[in-house]
Amino acid sequence: EDEEEKELRQRFMAPPVSGLRELRRRRRELRSRMEMLIMETQAEVCRALAALDPGASFVVDSWERKEGGGGISCVLQDGEVFEKAGVNVSVVSGFLSEEAARQMRSRGKSLKAKDGKLPFCAMGVSSVIHPKNPHVPTMHFNYRYFEIEEADGTKQWWFGGGTDLTPTYLNEEDAVHFHRTLKEACDKHDLKLYPKYKKWCDDYFYIKHRGERRGIGGIFFDDMDSPSKEEVFQFVKSCAKAVVPCYIPIVKKHCHDTFTPEEKLWQQLRRGRYVEFNLVYDRGTKFGLLTPGSRIESILMSLPLTARWEYMHNPPESSKEAEILEVLRNPKDWVH
Amino acid sequence: EDEEEKELRQRFMAPPVSGLRELRRRRRELRSRMEMLIMETQAEVCRALAALDPGASFVVDSWERKEGGGGISCVLQDGEVFEKAGVNVSVVSGFLSEEAARQMRSRGKSLKAKDGKLPFCAMGVSSVIHPKNPHVPTMHFNYRYFEIEEADGTKQWWFGGGTDLTPTYLNEEDAVHFHRTLKEACDKHDLKLYPKYKKWCDDYFYIKHRGERRGIGGIFFDDMDSPSKEEVFQFVKSCAKAVVPCYIPIVKKHCHDTFTPEEKLWQQLRRGRYVEFNLVYDRGTKFGLLTPGSRIESILMSLPLTARWEYMHNPPESSKEAEILEVLRNPKDWVH
Repeated sequence: EDEEEKELRQRFMAPPVSGLRELRRRRRELRSRMEMLIMETQAEVCRALAALDPGASFVVDSWERKEGGGGISCVLQDGEVFEKAGVNVSVVSGFLSEEAARQMRSRGKSLKAKDGKLPFCAMGVSSVIHPKNPHVPTMHFNYRYFEIEEADGTKQWWFGGGTDLTPTYLNEEDAVHFHRTLKEACDKHDLKLYPKYKKWCDDYFYIKHRGERRGIGGIFFDDMDSPSKEEVFQFVKSCAKAVVPCYIPIVKKHCHDTFTPEEKLWQQLRRGRYVEFNLVYDRGTKFGLLTPGSRIESILMSLPLTARWEYMHNPPESSKEAEILEVLRNPKDWVH
Repeated sequence: EDEEEKELRQRFMAPPVSGLRELRRRRRELRSRMEMLIMETQAEVCRALAALDPGASFVVDSWERKEGGGGISCVLQDGEVFEKAGVNVSVVSGFLSEEAARQMRSRGKSLKAKDGKLPFCAMGVSSVIHPKNPHVPTMHFNYRYFEIEEADGTKQWWFGGGTDLTPTYLNEEDAVHFHRTLKEACDKHDLKLYPKYKKWCDDYFYIKHRGERRGIGGIFFDDMDSPSKEEVFQFVKSCAKAVVPCYIPIVKKHCHDTFTPEEKLWQQLRRGRYVEFNLVYDRGTKFGLLTPGSRIESILMSLPLTARWEYMHNPPESSKEAEILEVLRNPKDWVH
């Protein structure tokens, strides 16, 4: 048994929030399998990133939430390849107010509470990778699972998540590779999923006041609760397993590209837009900032190391900067 | 008459939104006097800043809002002394929905609309000055006037505004000078105003998720509609006239101070907090981003040229960085 524990410890970045013994005990429950998946995903992604940035290393923080549960934050900062890379796992449980439960669920289904409180469990892995080189895009992914118990004992559950890419400059080959890898992960489960979640992604990552998307998209979904718990879990697993193959080859391909100070400056301005989206629109960030007891450092890990805002910066027509802006204003289909 | 126009043009950064002829025609109306005051304030501040940064100059943009009104944005970027300094005037009129009108008024008074629409007029001057040197604080001010006409023809009006300081490092002498200058401006009108508006400022500029204020405060007020329109206008005028004397001496005193790369880095981290406040909490920014037809470049002029976010940055105890954090967490009274 100790051997098994040792083995598990080596597989993960830190001991899981629920404890190995407990996870093993209830290994057939979906909660446990999801917690294992998010822990594995965190370790896989961190190892793949660390292999590309040998001088740097991840700081691993395990933290507890006094209201119940906790998390593990892995952050690599100011490396050779990555400006800031964070991969965060959280496994949180406790009681929600009806109002908070409604806000969590984007379709706003009403939930009946017992004495105004709903027992809940929320877990997920989320990550933002900001590379140094302006020819390597920023990548974000997040996969999460919720359970809420209503007054009559019925359990509501759903999954959410997505993976999306934010390049400073457009590279069509990379865009196609990224989207194709995600499409393949989706297509194994249902051919309708990729087109639906690709559009949802373009709609969600919209910086309304700029009339621009944050990036060139990917997939995004929320409130997924059909066809069955097992099938949705298998779908989420495929998506989580697609993170490394959709992104790492793009980093490898461009992390030694040469770049000019002007290209770095454009990257910094785009980082500013990333901050605008995350602080003004992102539901997860807003929910986190409003939730008492949430760990601010882990929530704001998504912000870049550096960003820039210039008054009235407008790239010249037909420039490479105007090319990406065009795609951010009018999203394209990258694979059919 | 042409001579008078020429003279006025020389006093301002650009022709006023309502036109000189129109402002002269209705010179006794408060709207006109307020528009003159905000134009004068813009010119005064821009000239005082430009005098300290002779290599740089203000870009002046006059813009129109297709729904009615317009504005004048003056921005100095990447100067020797100032990283980014913006002084913006806007004079806007049209119709508001009852919902929008309620949001505008912080106390949430309900207003009766005719056919669901409320004719309104809003004008103000607002400014954020981000200096390069980490020993020169960032300063923000905003003075504004609103009029809304209800269904029965009664006009509601109110003033709002404030001036506040955001240092990277604490300098007690500067903090006292800044607050004393504002207190003197308030005390001429009513001894109760400074203590009330000093506290309101500390409460308003609160970054809740950090448990920190944005800066060391100043004064802030909203919904001011008593004792009388004339008296409130005279108070706002005193505040607007205090901007240059409360801030410019501090810039002069420190703009040639030497600083280390570590001090510059701390400044950049504090700029990140400034962005967090403005995008997550500031009512004016949020209102602007949600208002169709608003000029985004003028609203986001308040963001610094550059900002930085580091994961888990905690300054050592008894450091100069910890000293300012202490004051941001527990606001002090600087003058009695």
